Amino acid sequence: MKLYDYPRSSAAYRVRIALNLKGQTFEAVPVNLLEGAQRGEDYRALNPTGLVPSLDTGEGLLGQSLAIIEYLDERFPAPPLLPAGAFARARARALALQVACDIHPLNNLRVLQYLVGEFGIDEQQKLAWYHHWLQQGLAALERQLTETDSPFCCGDTPGLADICLVPQLYNARRFGLDLAPYPRLVAIEAACLRLEAFAAAHPDHHQEA
Amino acid sequence: MKLYDYPRSSAAYRVRIALNLKGQTFEAVPVNLLEGAQRGEDYRALNPTGLVPSLDTGEGLLGQSLAIIEYLDERFPAPPLLPAGAFARARARALALQVACDIHPLNNLRVLQYLVGEFGIDEQQKLAWYHHWLQQGLAALERQLTETDSPFCCGDTPGLADICLVPQLYNARRFGLDLAPYPRLVAIEAACLRLEAFAAAHPDHHQEA
Repeated sequence: MKLYDYPRSSAAYRVRIALNLKGQTFEAVPVNLLEGAQRGEDYRALNPTGLVPSLDTGEGLLGQSLAIIEYLDERFPAPPLLPAGAFARARARALALQVACDIHPLNNLRVLQYLVGEFGIDEQQKLAWYHHWLQQGLAALERQLTETDSPFCCGDTPGLADICLVPQLYNARRFGLDLAPYPRLVAIEAACLRLEAFAAAHPDHHQEA
Repeated sequence: MKLYDYPRSSAAYRVRIALNLKGQTFEAVPVNLLEGAQRGEDYRALNPTGLVPSLDTGEGLLGQSLAIIEYLDERFPAPPLLPAGAFARARARALALQVACDIHPLNNLRVLQYLVGEFGIDEQQKLAWYHHWLQQGLAALERQLTETDSPFCCGDTPGLADICLVPQLYNARRFGLDLAPYPRLVAIEAACLRLEAFAAAHPDHHQEA
């Protein structure tokens, strides 16, 4: 499979982790977000959203990291990325969506560019915005996850929620957020990063276009 | 089941449609977003994200509309809300996520309140922001969906992508977006609104707290 990728895109980082957990090798095709390659017609002809990542699955191209990960989980069932049982699965998906809908879209590069370009916000305002949505989202996750003490978000093996959490905490560190209020999240992150599938997906191991 | 609901929340609107499609009756518990009830400790004790909707499923409380809808689809398999086959399912999920991640979070009430309260943007800037993310997202959906001519987003029956599209177009109309560039989306919306499950879920049929 071929992954249209950008190392620091946290959505692409999620898919790299999932591919690694499933033991699937992939060819990474770099799309340079800072140069706007994702908005060019070449890329939009593949993925009209102009967003990274996309996965060329062999049976067609897919966008949206969570859809890609569910696809990988259905096509390659072992090891499962969701627990058994409708309620437990939904709970895992809800944790993942708290990152994917409530935090990440607001702190995306295109959004920060709009805020600076159209509203003229300064660096301090940009950082306050970035931290605000992280803090809202991470506080809710911390509160929910302290109800359990499993090594990962949803039990003894890593899954969809962990796949979303780890790249989000990478972003939080990169933007200088104090993670002291989230000890449970940081402990889950540490458990994940001890695994080769997570460590090998880290942005530092992937080069830019 | 009990749905913590707000009529004009498009995420809650999605869940009402899904419950109706599954033939599940539910008790709606109004949470007044304009009064900030979702941020109060009473509601946060149920759902720490402070976001609507939540569904009390009888086996626990779930947040995040897409997780709730997947839960309903697994617990009550007929009629299915996703097509058969891993790739087709992923494509349907990707369309839904284009609404749920790429449009809706940016135009959420809490975000508009932040932009006005912290950055002091005016009404015109707020509308430009709202329309910008709608236009980006709807243009990508229109381009993808014109590749097919099925009555609904993913075939002859309504599903997850339609459930996300219809409330988003409701919001677009409410904020005065010109929908002329999106004839395929408007046709799918019309097909959906001819169905009782969609019509009965419309915000006009649900009262505020």
